[in-house]
Amino acid sequence: MTTHFDSIQSKFDRLRKNKLFELLVIAVIIFSALMIGVKTFDIPNWLHTGLSVLDWGVTVFFLIEITIRFIGEPRKRDFFKNGWNLFDTFVVTLSLIPVGNNDMALIARLVRVFRVLRMVSIIPELRMLINSLLKALPQLGYVLLMMFVIFYIYAAVGTTVFASINSELWGDIAISLLTLFRVMTFEDWTDVMYETMTVHGWSWMYFLSFICLTAFAFLNMVIGIVVNVIEQENKEADAAEHAGEPTIVDVHRELLALKAQLAEQQRRS
Amino acid sequence: MTTHFDSIQSKFDRLRKNKLFELLVIAVIIFSALMIGVKTFDIPNWLHTGLSVLDWGVTVFFLIEITIRFIGEPRKRDFFKNGWNLFDTFVVTLSLIPVGNNDMALIARLVRVFRVLRMVSIIPELRMLINSLLKALPQLGYVLLMMFVIFYIYAAVGTTVFASINSELWGDIAISLLTLFRVMTFEDWTDVMYETMTVHGWSWMYFLSFICLTAFAFLNMVIGIVVNVIEQENKEADAAEHAGEPTIVDVHRELLALKAQLAEQQRRS
Amino acid sequence: MTTHFDSIQSKFDRLRKNKLFELLVIAVIIFSALMIGVKTFDIPNWLHTGLSVLDWGVTVFFLIEITIRFIGEPRKRDFFKNGWNLFDTFVVTLSLIPVGNNDMALIARLVRVFRVLRMVSIIPELRMLINSLLKALPQLGYVLLMMFVIFYIYAAVGTTVFASINSELWGDIAISLLTLFRVMTFEDWTDVMYETMTVHGWSWMYFLSFICLTAFAFLNMVIGIVVNVIEQENKEADAAEHAGEPTIVDVHRELLALKAQLAEQQRRS
Amino acid sequence: MTTHFDSIQSKFDRLRKNKLFELLVIAVIIFSALMIGVKTFDIPNWLHTGLSVLDWGVTVFFLIEITIRFIGEPRKRDFFKNGWNLFDTFVVTLSLIPVGNNDMALIARLVRVFRVLRMVSIIPELRMLINSLLKALPQLGYVLLMMFVIFYIYAAVGTTVFASINSELWGDIAISLLTLFRVMTFEDWTDVMYETMTVHGWSWMYFLSFICLTAFAFLNMVIGIVVNVIEQENKEADAAEHAGEPTIVDVHRELLALKAQLAEQQRRS
Repeated sequence: MTTHFDSIQSKFDRLRKNKLFELLVIAVIIFSALMIGVKTFDIPNWLHTGLSVLDWGVTVFFLIEITIRFIGEPRKRDFFKNGWNLFDTFVVTLSLIPVGNNDMALIARLVRVFRVLRMVSIIPELRMLINSLLKALPQLGYVLLMMFVIFYIYAAVGTTVFASINSELWGDIAISLLTLFRVMTFEDWTDVMYETMTVHGWSWMYFLSFICLTAFAFLNMVIGIVVNVIEQENKEADAAEHAGEPTIVDVHRELLALKAQLAEQQRRS
Repeated sequence: MTTHFDSIQSKFDRLRKNKLFELLVIAVIIFSALMIGVKTFDIPNWLHTGLSVLDWGVTVFFLIEITIRFIGEPRKRDFFKNGWNLFDTFVVTLSLIPVGNNDMALIARLVRVFRVLRMVSIIPELRMLINSLLKALPQLGYVLLMMFVIFYIYAAVGTTVFASINSELWGDIAISLLTLFRVMTFEDWTDVMYETMTVHGWSWMYFLSFICLTAFAFLNMVIGIVVNVIEQENKEADAAEHAGEPTIVDVHRELLALKAQLAEQQRRS
Repeated sequence: MTTHFDSIQSKFDRLRKNKLFELLVIAVIIFSALMIGVKTFDIPNWLHTGLSVLDWGVTVFFLIEITIRFIGEPRKRDFFKNGWNLFDTFVVTLSLIPVGNNDMALIARLVRVFRVLRMVSIIPELRMLINSLLKALPQLGYVLLMMFVIFYIYAAVGTTVFASINSELWGDIAISLLTLFRVMTFEDWTDVMYETMTVHGWSWMYFLSFICLTAFAFLNMVIGIVVNVIEQENKEADAAEHAGEPTIVDVHRELLALKAQLAEQQRRS
Repeated sequence: MTTHFDSIQSKFDRLRKNKLFELLVIAVIIFSALMIGVKTFDIPNWLHTGLSVLDWGVTVFFLIEITIRFIGEPRKRDFFKNGWNLFDTFVVTLSLIPVGNNDMALIARLVRVFRVLRMVSIIPELRMLINSLLKALPQLGYVLLMMFVIFYIYAAVGTTVFASINSELWGDIAISLLTLFRVMTFEDWTDVMYETMTVHGWSWMYFLSFICLTAFAFLNMVIGIVVNVIEQENKEADAAEHAGEPTIVDVHRELLALKAQLAEQQRRS
């Protein structure tokens, strides 16, 4: 019995590692994404019905695919240790929720959108890209904290001073934070400034100092990443290039050994 | 007969590699570009007629030039293996289409515009620039795919949720993709956001997360290119600088040989 | 007596270096920041009164904390040599000013905002970030001076020529500098340009040259920082990596010594 | 007579190289810049008259300063070989033109503005900055040419197709180039696009491809400069660091000599 089960497991393991199987899954994901796109256009009723049927087909296909992956896993516990597997299972399970009334329909459609993200979990290169992004994030932590402190202080000052001028932009600290994000992206920031300058003539200093501070912090962040990435690349390149080759330390050691050998020879003669 | 033909071929080969001939072609291209520019201004009729005549002159010149290049080619098959030659032939041939009614006139004028692109095919430095750009493109492939996945998911969500608010910005997935590109360039993105926030108060999260994600992905892309370019430069510089010079591996090998030699000497004495 | 006092000093010294104490101070700062944020929303009267009481509590806590730091300092003079301590004392002392009439209330509230900046003075990593920013500033000095010269000349020309067209944008040199900063951020710069172009058709040259000059200067600045940072990193990495290892100079010296030894041996035999 | 003249020359030479003299000139330039700024504000008549007198004082001071520099030059011909000296003489001479009617007054005021540029010619660090900028320019030549070709083709297409929609933005090729520069800076580019899309639905492709192409070309340019600067820095750093130190080539040569010596010794014994 066990042998029979094992043979199914190893068969499925081979299947899920098959390149053609992977391409089929990618094709279904792309097809599923296109279906979502087509549905947003004005389409005749019969096409809409057809797409709904196809949508169930896609859901069933994904369900079968996940099952194959699960059965193909030699050690079942490892399956849930992999974050991407959990993500896949979660997204596919959510698609099973039946679409009832209108409210649920909206959520069900949104869930189907996230199936496009399976593109990332299935293509190894994209998975690596995400991993490297996540690795870079903690290094940026303190710069982001610093930036938030700057934002918070400016938002608090802005709310205190400008709230009476335009409550839609400076009404409370949450709205002010949004307004400052807008100023940081240079999006109509002069409209915001000219309005406050009619009451507080000095407020250009508030905006200019904010822009300079955030630009400088942002620059610092970018440089931080660049330097970090280049450094890592250099280390890896060095390690890869000169692996196994003798270093200058080896040469030096050999030289000293040679000297000792020669001295010994001299002493003997 | 063949000898005679060959002499024409080699004569034309020398002509097309002549620096003066190249400068003449560049001059005609610039003149052709200026003619296109002048035609867009309000000009008297006689000048317009004159320009049309000159335009035919340019077409004939280019035709002769391409013919010279073709005849000058030692092996005719190689001529069509070069992408730039195909491009030149294509552009010049298109100019031959007679300008009939108004619709065709528009297309004929557009075709003449692309003759300016011959500047790229004739100046070797620009050709190299294009080639290096094309070489960098595949490395960016996965980042661009990732970016498209982000765009597509946000466009699908945006269409589903915001279509009823403003169908001109979120009507279908194609329009939503255009709107998101606009948001990415920070072009009046707050107008788009404030409109959706009147109905869905939480929609600032949609826009802020999108801006952060695309900015981060874009940053990643830029850094990717920079690192890649610097790496290649370093490799080339290393290879060029130390070509033929002994490496530390050579030194180590010599040292070991020396040691063995000394040991041999010691053993004998 | 001295012994007794010393024991208090050393006790407080241990206290202020305690990780838990630091976390408590950070928690109080965050709490103080949240209070400032909450106050900007429409809140019932009883909450407002409660927050005012809590605010005094925070002020008293900071006062005690600074006192502990001061008493914990082995040499009292060193306390005031540290810029961060001075900043902390200044911010906390300012909070003691009683909130009287409305005008003072505004200032008192603004002072409380700056208590959030204590986040920087208390977290070592943020302190280091600020220090490294300050270190980078003098290197940028000359580029900033150059940029100011460009801004000043363009502002003087702009005021002289465009003041009669729109005095709100070009009225005097201060307003012109602000307008040019706006143009540099690309914020509705074409509105400014189209207006001046109705009178002075050539003014597009003024704006395009300004944009190119500042963009180029800014680029130069960024590259300057990047190169500087990478250089320093490389130096530090080199120093750290090869510390104590023999260099090629050592190897060369050993080799020459070996040669001399061998020659000596040869001469003797 | 010559000796007497020579002593004046050497005296003036020492004067112009004096640090205090340089600081005085910088102070006068800053004072002159401030005067230009003050004049743009609404000032009482007596101050205006006073400033005009001071302005003549500044002109006379600069005249004397240039004369000192000229007399201080050991070889008079070298004075005019230095571009900065020519620039200084030109700016100061222009200031001598008497301010007659209103038209001339405007020009005279503009000329005075350029005296601020003498800041660059007098501070060595700024002069070096300008020189390094000028050095970087030719390397960018081909990228700029490529960018202009892109701009020209898009402008020609835009004028041909969109001129009938909005002649203020696409009237002739010059206006189209300006409009495209505006699109490149993302300044209200969607307004331009939405307008053309009402007639030509496909025109989003025109704008998106243009933005991508210019962004990519610009990126390429930036990376080109960065790589170039870093490369030069590395070369200089390498040359400076290892100057006079033995290289691996020296070590290798010594090793081969040693081997030969040893072989010789072996052969003899």
